[in-house]
Amino acid sequence: MPSTLPYDFTSLERSMWRYHDRLTVVEGCTPVSLGEGLTPLLRSRTSPPGMTLFYKNETVNPTGSQKDRALSVSITKAVQLGHRTVMLYSDGSTALASAAYAARAGLRSLTLVARGTPDYRLLPLIFFNSTILEYQGSASEALAWTSEACRALNLYETTTTRSANPYGAEGVKTISYEIAEELRDAPSWVVVPVGGGGTLCGIWKGFRELYESGQISRCPRMAAVLPAGYGIIEDAMIKGITDDAVFRSMTLQNPPATIQAKTAMAFPPDGLETIRAIKESDGILLYASDQQALSGQRLLGREGIFAEPSAAAVMAAIQTLAERELAKEQVVVAVITGSGYREVGSISDEVCLQKNSITPTSGIDELRRLLDGFRNQ
Amino acid sequence: MPSTLPYDFTSLERSMWRYHDRLTVVEGCTPVSLGEGLTPLLRSRTSPPGMTLFYKNETVNPTGSQKDRALSVSITKAVQLGHRTVMLYSDGSTALASAAYAARAGLRSLTLVARGTPDYRLLPLIFFNSTILEYQGSASEALAWTSEACRALNLYETTTTRSANPYGAEGVKTISYEIAEELRDAPSWVVVPVGGGGTLCGIWKGFRELYESGQISRCPRMAAVLPAGYGIIEDAMIKGITDDAVFRSMTLQNPPATIQAKTAMAFPPDGLETIRAIKESDGILLYASDQQALSGQRLLGREGIFAEPSAAAVMAAIQTLAERELAKEQVVVAVITGSGYREVGSISDEVCLQKNSITPTSGIDELRRLLDGFRNQ
Repeated sequence: MPSTLPYDFTSLERSMWRYHDRLTVVEGCTPVSLGEGLTPLLRSRTSPPGMTLFYKNETVNPTGSQKDRALSVSITKAVQLGHRTVMLYSDGSTALASAAYAARAGLRSLTLVARGTPDYRLLPLIFFNSTILEYQGSASEALAWTSEACRALNLYETTTTRSANPYGAEGVKTISYEIAEELRDAPSWVVVPVGGGGTLCGIWKGFRELYESGQISRCPRMAAVLPAGYGIIEDAMIKGITDDAVFRSMTLQNPPATIQAKTAMAFPPDGLETIRAIKESDGILLYASDQQALSGQRLLGREGIFAEPSAAAVMAAIQTLAERELAKEQVVVAVITGSGYREVGSISDEVCLQKNSITPTSGIDELRRLLDGFRNQ
Repeated sequence: MPSTLPYDFTSLERSMWRYHDRLTVVEGCTPVSLGEGLTPLLRSRTSPPGMTLFYKNETVNPTGSQKDRALSVSITKAVQLGHRTVMLYSDGSTALASAAYAARAGLRSLTLVARGTPDYRLLPLIFFNSTILEYQGSASEALAWTSEACRALNLYETTTTRSANPYGAEGVKTISYEIAEELRDAPSWVVVPVGGGGTLCGIWKGFRELYESGQISRCPRMAAVLPAGYGIIEDAMIKGITDDAVFRSMTLQNPPATIQAKTAMAFPPDGLETIRAIKESDGILLYASDQQALSGQRLLGREGIFAEPSAAAVMAAIQTLAERELAKEQVVVAVITGSGYREVGSISDEVCLQKNSITPTSGIDELRRLLDGFRNQ
């Protein structure tokens, strides 16, 4: 086999890079790819009556979330620009993606995290050889500090907010291309968990581009799902806020504790753009309690998908859309953003692990009784 | 959009079911699929001198391992045969896959596990609604008991040993199809972690089929990687054992403790078939110490892949093949079987989590010193 064969060609065709002609910000670059994207669109086997529900399963991305799409583009750009070191503020999905893609590209990576981030969330970063920095201040300060430090020290910032890095959203929009290609049009609704807002905005951008180039007949309505108590985007939408400084002054001072760790943001950096996307798409803002996120995990588990609580929150929105008959006779796509396997540590206290004992000698009788019990349920 | 569109078509084309014509055991069945397979083949950016090394990244399968391929076929068959309840003995990757695919198919699932299985490994099963049974006896007894109970109570057994379920291997062989399609021939070597042996045998079967139908010019040599101290397959190979009862009598009585949990089998159920595959392919048996498995995780991390210790053990084999010049000027594919995210709990004691403190006021100077330190390294 000659060693000049373009070995990577097929794997790239089987990733979001199949849409490379739409990723104009990195035109001509060699993709830094781990095979992200082209994720399964699974039809729900328990759609609410009158709704055709699909799950866009982003949990099977290389580091377990949709952030891999953003970071694949973002790190590709870093290489093109000649950077050697990247840094971001994140202790969630973006941290993993940044560290993994930096490693893949042979770049040094720095991850700034909040104090008190649990070890299980940081541990994979060690394997990606990322240097962990613990910031002794608030999250909002940390975001600003990261941008300032990157400017001062000429580091490439991989935080996935639009102001910190405009390239990431280009990767995210491939979610829309894949959905549209598979459904042969846009769905009626797309339901997306919202933390900073960047993922929803990227998906909306993708559909808008497809609509403008005549490849879909309509745009979907966007449903944003936030943890209960995180109402800053809705407040700003109601008040008609468009000024960034005013929006920033609305930062939640005492945001409620929640297991929806990835979407619990006292200040959503892409909040104003999220408001525009929701308004333009005739969309809606919905909330999920922790209880709803946990039961969402169980509902998704019964479909074969193990999501983290922040991602499973979409199931609360599906229920609301169904109850309010907003999506009657319509096609709905719920974006399942993050894998539960990375977050087992966060839910172990919430779940009762029941084990039935089986003894070798009498086990078959014990099992027969258990099965009879199921039948009588 | 008419609701009669074959929505699942494209997603299936983007899964291992693109080879459905080769999965004759489930011909005509509706696949129970979560989008398994068609995983990335990533070229190593740090191949040993003279070797072209690829990683077949099975960690991005729906439940994080190659077992999803086996269970997709196996559960598809269960539905065809009209079963309503499935059971297996496993507390590793197969348990997750069985529970997830049973959930996807709407079947009840029972998971028999060993005593002392850590909670973090069982917790996802709860979300898939699997009933956990804890067997109060040895692993070898548990395997036999599971088959006996399935026969007695007419349950469908999803254990991935050849004798318990012959269908799973058909799914595994699609790994070979994908590698051969992408490389346009077989590689020189395929390196596979071996626990029970089923995955290596399935991959070997795939290549043999492709060779027999003239689609590849040669078969690869198979390299099996086992945890150090698990020498039963090698012993049997040296002694020329072919009788199942004799092989069973060689079961390790005091197998060494290891962090390579998924491949640590006192008795490998498909061991004799594994011996045949290694002999037929002019292959080799190699071992990985826990230290090698852990440094394998770091090596793979530097390529952007986070593998569990049992899977990262392949890196020890790559080093041996390179040192012995067995794969000089050759193409080698290492199958990375399982994701590290599911096994963070097992390695937290092995890794030092170093954090650098950053104070808001003097942080940029602290960071500059840190970066200077890197440069002087």
